[in-house]
Amino acid sequence: RDTENAPNRAERFLRACRCLPVDCTPVWIMRQAGRYLPEYRKIREKVSFLTLCKTPDLAAEVTCQPVDILGVDAAILFSDILIPLEAMGSAVDFTDAGPQFRKPVSTEADVKGLLMPDPVQTMPFVFETIRILRGMLRGKVPLIGFAGAPFTLTCYLVEGGSSTGFYNLKRLMFREPAVAHLLLDKISEEIVLYLNAQTEAGVQAVQLFDTWAGILTPQDYKEFAFPYVRRVIDGLRGDVPVILYVNGCCGLIEMMEETGADVISVDWRIGLDAVRARLKRQTALQGNLDPAALYLPEEKIGERVADVLQKASGAQGHIFNLGHGILPDTPVEHAVAMVKAVHRFSLNRDS
Amino acid sequence: RDTENAPNRAERFLRACRCLPVDCTPVWIMRQAGRYLPEYRKIREKVSFLTLCKTPDLAAEVTCQPVDILGVDAAILFSDILIPLEAMGSAVDFTDAGPQFRKPVSTEADVKGLLMPDPVQTMPFVFETIRILRGMLRGKVPLIGFAGAPFTLTCYLVEGGSSTGFYNLKRLMFREPAVAHLLLDKISEEIVLYLNAQTEAGVQAVQLFDTWAGILTPQDYKEFAFPYVRRVIDGLRGDVPVILYVNGCCGLIEMMEETGADVISVDWRIGLDAVRARLKRQTALQGNLDPAALYLPEEKIGERVADVLQKASGAQGHIFNLGHGILPDTPVEHAVAMVKAVHRFSLNRDS
Repeated sequence: RDTENAPNRAERFLRACRCLPVDCTPVWIMRQAGRYLPEYRKIREKVSFLTLCKTPDLAAEVTCQPVDILGVDAAILFSDILIPLEAMGSAVDFTDAGPQFRKPVSTEADVKGLLMPDPVQTMPFVFETIRILRGMLRGKVPLIGFAGAPFTLTCYLVEGGSSTGFYNLKRLMFREPAVAHLLLDKISEEIVLYLNAQTEAGVQAVQLFDTWAGILTPQDYKEFAFPYVRRVIDGLRGDVPVILYVNGCCGLIEMMEETGADVISVDWRIGLDAVRARLKRQTALQGNLDPAALYLPEEKIGERVADVLQKASGAQGHIFNLGHGILPDTPVEHAVAMVKAVHRFSLNRDS
Repeated sequence: RDTENAPNRAERFLRACRCLPVDCTPVWIMRQAGRYLPEYRKIREKVSFLTLCKTPDLAAEVTCQPVDILGVDAAILFSDILIPLEAMGSAVDFTDAGPQFRKPVSTEADVKGLLMPDPVQTMPFVFETIRILRGMLRGKVPLIGFAGAPFTLTCYLVEGGSSTGFYNLKRLMFREPAVAHLLLDKISEEIVLYLNAQTEAGVQAVQLFDTWAGILTPQDYKEFAFPYVRRVIDGLRGDVPVILYVNGCCGLIEMMEETGADVISVDWRIGLDAVRARLKRQTALQGNLDPAALYLPEEKIGERVADVLQKASGAQGHIFNLGHGILPDTPVEHAVAMVKAVHRFSLNRDS
């Protein structure tokens, strides 16, 4: 069976999000359009990261690269979670050391000064990229849109960039909780507008990246992350499944399910069987191979894939992915081997 | 009741390690001798970090500082987990950006070139510090010794310093597992010698810091971390309780208990009630306030302390601590407030 040219390829991912039967387990990779691909690096030689995000033809091109090269079952819009923060008036530079905000948010006045722009007016390139992509993909695989979840965006905005512990944000949360909540409020409202505009432009599912929520105690997650994810999900129009990703989600599984997300995307530090045992409803799971496992020799990658599939206990309600973004020094042929192994090992011989 | 001058102060910590009844919950703080204390910074103005570790009178002095300033129930030897790696022949510089090994280990020849020194001959300052401390503490509070666990030491030695994901080590583990295991073997053997020498010099408990084991999948923990922790614990002579700490331990609780550690030290990302529910035996727990919670106003710190104590369900078999080292910008009076709250809220009025 040629899973890549199967008529079901277009449906696998969206059916898995809804826990419906599938011909084999769908697979895509976080950061699948990225530096590990020579085709991507070739385009980045000519344009900066931010220019690439803002040039619809190029963004659409890199979005499609992994669909053909890897044979994945979904495309994800090429963009960055910080784009809406820039539109809200907080200038950001993408440096070799990671993103740097020119003026991190630290006071109530800073928060009040943030704009609440119309996404369609201020980030037209995002929606133009989506429209181009729907034409290019022609229903071959679905297109996933995305946004940073409010807590994670707040992490970057207050810290001014990436961090190991985001202590500036924790200091703000604990010393001036009202300011932190006001900021989370504003970001949540903007993200609802942003994701609804993505859906109207044509994305068929959305992933909320709450990448840094794993730095929180369960108690603080409940106060500073959970209500805002829930508000975003409640504010979404259209019938698009929502995937919620948290890196370091082991202590937060039950609350992640309570947000109402259709799919919980799990990092590699806990088995999907242990996650499944803690869920109350039939919620789909995404994940959860350690990105570093793609350093393994190809034959060993198959063993790891089989282990994840077995712990997910079948193709229904499971989307295979890494537990975090693919590493820049991953050999492309190892990513291809992973995708092939997922399809081969999960194939339902009756369908 | 004056918990700091109670006759039981000397016994609280060691009794809690054994799950025996105590008059109130014992408390100490990871990195309690450190930069947040003005008294410590005053000494560091005169000597480098490494000189401080290697000067027994000064190391003993900073070890004792928090015992009186904070009123904690245990002292922990002032040293660094990387000291034995230096003794094994791998030179390390302590820079403002963290520790840097001059020549990270990457090949089998590098591993074979590592020395297996007699700790007493090569690190005499450690054991001299312990002997001085036992005299200074005069039984007021017990003295904890420590070492890095083999996996965590391997992280530093292969990566050459700290890292977010320790991908060089994961590459080695996955591409040349025999080399990784040889390195883990040698480090385990040295750590057994090192901890037994600490016990002979007078430490009354030991903590194994497997700080970075939380970057592993449960499967890789089982192969690359668990067997070496177990080997170290099995190799220890003398009747000293062993505390095992992992940052990001949520997915590893069951295996941590299986190592045979007397106390499992838990980070802040999971409640102690959820940990307790997963244990098979009556194993003591240590933890687990978020270090950033000491940014809270003093009255709020009391609420957080009460919450941790409640989740630990009583003083028996619980040692209060932070979930990671105290942050350098913590107000000292907040740390004092935490210690006082632990004692006050956990006091057994009948004893």
